[in-house]
Amino acid sequence: MFKVIFMNYVKDFKWKKGMKADEFVTGLSKVGFQSVLLGRASEIIRKMKRDGAKIYLTFTSNMATSGLRGFFAQLIDLGMADIIVTTVGGLEEDIMRASKERFAIGSFRADDVALHEKGMNRVGNILIREESYANFEDIMTRMLGKIYEKKKRLTTAEFFREIGLMLRDKDSILYQAARHNVPVFCPAVTDGALGFHLFMFQEKHPDFIIDSVRDFKDIVVFTSQDDRKGIICLGGGVSKHYAILSTLINGGMDYAVYMTTASASSGSMSGATTDEAKSWGKIKDDADAVTVIGDVTITFPLVMAKALEELKKEGCLRK
Amino acid sequence: MFKVIFMNYVKDFKWKKGMKADEFVTGLSKVGFQSVLLGRASEIIRKMKRDGAKIYLTFTSNMATSGLRGFFAQLIDLGMADIIVTTVGGLEEDIMRASKERFAIGSFRADDVALHEKGMNRVGNILIREESYANFEDIMTRMLGKIYEKKKRLTTAEFFREIGLMLRDKDSILYQAARHNVPVFCPAVTDGALGFHLFMFQEKHPDFIIDSVRDFKDIVVFTSQDDRKGIICLGGGVSKHYAILSTLINGGMDYAVYMTTASASSGSMSGATTDEAKSWGKIKDDADAVTVIGDVTITFPLVMAKALEELKKEGCLRK
Amino acid sequence: MFKVIFMNYVKDFKWKKGMKADEFVTGLSKVGFQSVLLGRASEIIRKMKRDGAKIYLTFTSNMATSGLRGFFAQLIDLGMADIIVTTVGGLEEDIMRASKERFAIGSFRADDVALHEKGMNRVGNILIREESYANFEDIMTRMLGKIYEKKKRLTTAEFFREIGLMLRDKDSILYQAARHNVPVFCPAVTDGALGFHLFMFQEKHPDFIIDSVRDFKDIVVFTSQDDRKGIICLGGGVSKHYAILSTLINGGMDYAVYMTTASASSGSMSGATTDEAKSWGKIKDDADAVTVIGDVTITFPLVMAKALEELKKEGCLRK
Amino acid sequence: MFKVIFMNYVKDFKWKKGMKADEFVTGLSKVGFQSVLLGRASEIIRKMKRDGAKIYLTFTSNMATSGLRGFFAQLIDLGMADIIVTTVGGLEEDIMRASKERFAIGSFRADDVALHEKGMNRVGNILIREESYANFEDIMTRMLGKIYEKKKRLTTAEFFREIGLMLRDKDSILYQAARHNVPVFCPAVTDGALGFHLFMFQEKHPDFIIDSVRDFKDIVVFTSQDDRKGIICLGGGVSKHYAILSTLINGGMDYAVYMTTASASSGSMSGATTDEAKSWGKIKDDADAVTVIGDVTITFPLVMAKALEELKKEGCLRK
Repeated sequence: MFKVIFMNYVKDFKWKKGMKADEFVTGLSKVGFQSVLLGRASEIIRKMKRDGAKIYLTFTSNMATSGLRGFFAQLIDLGMADIIVTTVGGLEEDIMRASKERFAIGSFRADDVALHEKGMNRVGNILIREESYANFEDIMTRMLGKIYEKKKRLTTAEFFREIGLMLRDKDSILYQAARHNVPVFCPAVTDGALGFHLFMFQEKHPDFIIDSVRDFKDIVVFTSQDDRKGIICLGGGVSKHYAILSTLINGGMDYAVYMTTASASSGSMSGATTDEAKSWGKIKDDADAVTVIGDVTITFPLVMAKALEELKKEGCLRK
Repeated sequence: MFKVIFMNYVKDFKWKKGMKADEFVTGLSKVGFQSVLLGRASEIIRKMKRDGAKIYLTFTSNMATSGLRGFFAQLIDLGMADIIVTTVGGLEEDIMRASKERFAIGSFRADDVALHEKGMNRVGNILIREESYANFEDIMTRMLGKIYEKKKRLTTAEFFREIGLMLRDKDSILYQAARHNVPVFCPAVTDGALGFHLFMFQEKHPDFIIDSVRDFKDIVVFTSQDDRKGIICLGGGVSKHYAILSTLINGGMDYAVYMTTASASSGSMSGATTDEAKSWGKIKDDADAVTVIGDVTITFPLVMAKALEELKKEGCLRK
Repeated sequence: MFKVIFMNYVKDFKWKKGMKADEFVTGLSKVGFQSVLLGRASEIIRKMKRDGAKIYLTFTSNMATSGLRGFFAQLIDLGMADIIVTTVGGLEEDIMRASKERFAIGSFRADDVALHEKGMNRVGNILIREESYANFEDIMTRMLGKIYEKKKRLTTAEFFREIGLMLRDKDSILYQAARHNVPVFCPAVTDGALGFHLFMFQEKHPDFIIDSVRDFKDIVVFTSQDDRKGIICLGGGVSKHYAILSTLINGGMDYAVYMTTASASSGSMSGATTDEAKSWGKIKDDADAVTVIGDVTITFPLVMAKALEELKKEGCLRK
Repeated sequence: MFKVIFMNYVKDFKWKKGMKADEFVTGLSKVGFQSVLLGRASEIIRKMKRDGAKIYLTFTSNMATSGLRGFFAQLIDLGMADIIVTTVGGLEEDIMRASKERFAIGSFRADDVALHEKGMNRVGNILIREESYANFEDIMTRMLGKIYEKKKRLTTAEFFREIGLMLRDKDSILYQAARHNVPVFCPAVTDGALGFHLFMFQEKHPDFIIDSVRDFKDIVVFTSQDDRKGIICLGGGVSKHYAILSTLINGGMDYAVYMTTASASSGSMSGATTDEAKSWGKIKDDADAVTVIGDVTITFPLVMAKALEELKKEGCLRK
């Protein structure tokens, strides 16, 4: 243990005029505490890409509600995600944004009753108009009809691929995923406004089925024992667990970066560390793995700023 | 605002020899900080029961892995939950426990690679043997065959009801739920070992379907506009959101108690407060609602210790 | 390691009508996650008392602002604290409360500008009138005069002992401490309203000195190498560190219970675990030690409810 | 309220090859959640400097243990801090580093008993050799003698100024502070290894006094009612409170940036928000103020990267 320790010493961070974002992250990586882990995360992501691992990118709904949405789309376009797992709310918002809806920046301490009266829904300090959801309903009604014409029993990945093919926004997660054959899995697909629309549609078309069981089969067979596998896991919950569980019988992840605000102290999945995942075999015993604590809207772009710069130089990005 | 404020003053907590648990909680409720909110939560739960509200009890998987599992079963038996929403891991563990499996108490700082080698899976400081999962596979294989004979296309609530009817353990959540006609919804039903078993079963029986869309319909129609509705929401994620979303078109919750360790600062669903839910109409503008921060294995039994004692006296419990 | 693990299994928590607070805590102690650590904390506190250890009780200012204040006084009276370390704000509030001031319970989401206009100061969800501070000034001016007559150069422990001797409230920390010869150390004594009063007083009496260096000497020599030493450390910061540091040259603590909401992830003293303290020798390598995460206004009374009940039965309490 | 809200919309973050650190932060500032507040913090710091406010920089000990230490020194040199408040541990480490000691980067999950045996002390994931403390003792013994020759009764700011004048390291906080006449206040000056050395020194020189009361006077008179005042407050505890308290009678802060990992839910000073401070008048009602949640080793350099770049362009930096 000590050998490893002594290879690294705390180094004073210094600001330089005009410094680049990647230099900045390099500077942070010897400061101490979470900034060290940030540096490690950047390194692991670079390694998983260079090693040709299949990269799982998972995130919770709120992250796609935020301005990380276009960044996720960009990462797919650059070849940094081979498979996506997420929850439905963020995908709804991705579709809204692709239809020119805009979300406002408000305050965490807003008067929520007043917001409700004004038809504004709050997600942290982001505000979405109820009208945006009404527009979303129109879009979905139209899209559901078209999808049903092609196929009556779909997995969630098949369903969202069809939607992606109908979008025309290069900043959209679903658009880029469909274009690059990156499957988007969404295990709790009815847990959002989409749930209402699916339910209304099924009332009229009882043979319309979202097949969650085959969905799971598809994510499991996405990789084999022989594939190298890496995960970038933003936030917790179902999207996180569905991804790491799916590789369990194929030997677990070779690389893993968890980024979250949740603490391990309550035994939740959201706070479970990469170490805990090793006890299950969801991550390999000897995997390169790190858990970074902090708000993902800050930590994730930082980690990628350095990894992308280096991968670009090494010719590992698609663009 | 100040009128309300001045009705309550900080009161020194004092220990008394042989004091009862409910007296203890009453003592806490004027201490300050989260203990005040604990007292409020207890009051709101008491009110929702006395008001005849339909009570939604939601919890994350890890809580059913813990010793809260038998407490949830007891609460169903006492008539304190009319509908359950949860994730699949905890239900798997409920079935294991009903089949005499035991979980060990370990440490948060365990050596996870060593645990993996010994066939132990860690959830926080709880350890589950891999063998328990192997036994679970045998049980599920048998049960799936029986369920399939009765019905080929089920919602998650129908599926878990069938399982509950086959169990024989009064400390089991699924057993008590089936017995008292309390539906157990599980929106991401494949996100656990059960996912593997469902997938293997469907391979042989392609007409076996878990209908997630009808699942959502069923939870939506569980209540009407006229029903009074209350929620006790333990932890975050999909189980929390699925429940509050489902009442949205029926006017939202009249009473809400959120208990969580997640912080609101990152905009996550898990950390979203009862206030935020009001902006969406998931909780009514004038609802009695509170968010208590803390580990649910501690805060929830405390809140209930006082509520149950009082409801018992008032003849509001089933037993 | 596994031997220890298998001695404990998760046990379902069950509510019983009329259950006692200590039974309740016993029930919690096999639930999992933080509730297990709560049980351990209770056991360690019981052991430190039975073993005749000198007990250090440290807490942050906000805890004495809360209704834990009278509980701390009771614990001193029962013989559960031999030395106190804290910060000055809480002691000011202890003096105010002993002078019949009352603090209101408000809300964490108050309008702080409105509060300011109404002369209300907020501490979390507790409100203190500015008038209470004005009254405090009168009290201190009088007391400072009397103290100065007796002594011109004091340590903080000497200073607060003099104040305690002038109070007449058995729910007061300083009163009980003075009465039972329990020193109250306050390393950053000017960091509160008292700072202003001390400064005004010293302007008129330049030979009035708070001797912080001798203060440190006094806390160091409070114990010897031979003494058994235990600590109950509520919250973090200076009060925590001053206590554990002071025993370093006397071999460190034999027993330690840390209770806090702070996380270890940022490397702060407040979030530092009992394990980290072992690397410094502040806590002995083989000490019985535990860190419980959660709001102390809830977790600390729980831990004590069980410990006190048992110690009472065993005749280990002063009363 | 809505006018303000609608001036800002969520904007997708996009990575660009070779992007600058300040552009990066600009990109983050419209993402949502804490990244928005990061942008606000940067703006407020820029404003306080351009407005000619006296800038209070406060930080907890662990931050000076980390590689932020040289950055703090740089900020003083650039004219971004007019007064420092901190706790003693970090200043000890600043002196050690100025004497060529190096700190290793380890792991949060280290075996602390093993570390203790090897003479390594852990602060989060930073390791300090016990030998470094032994060397520190030699340095302090020598310095204390020299200081005593000049002055026998000192405030903490006077004391650390003397030390700063004896150092020869431009990356040292104390060196730069002394050079630029920036006072360094340390309210709990004995709460560290220095406490032992001061105590041993006072044993031999009983007229040696650290005058904490005059210390408080000096920080209070540092500003007047007329001065514009801003604070950058990193972490919580005594250093935070001492600074905001000191300006209370001079009207409170005009600008305030709090950066912390502590939560407001437990009513602690560390988690207290800038809003809470307004109820006390520690921050002005109409002050520009923000609280950013996250690890300061990451968030603070980010905030400054943008603020410094802009201030440099505007000619507001000393260098």
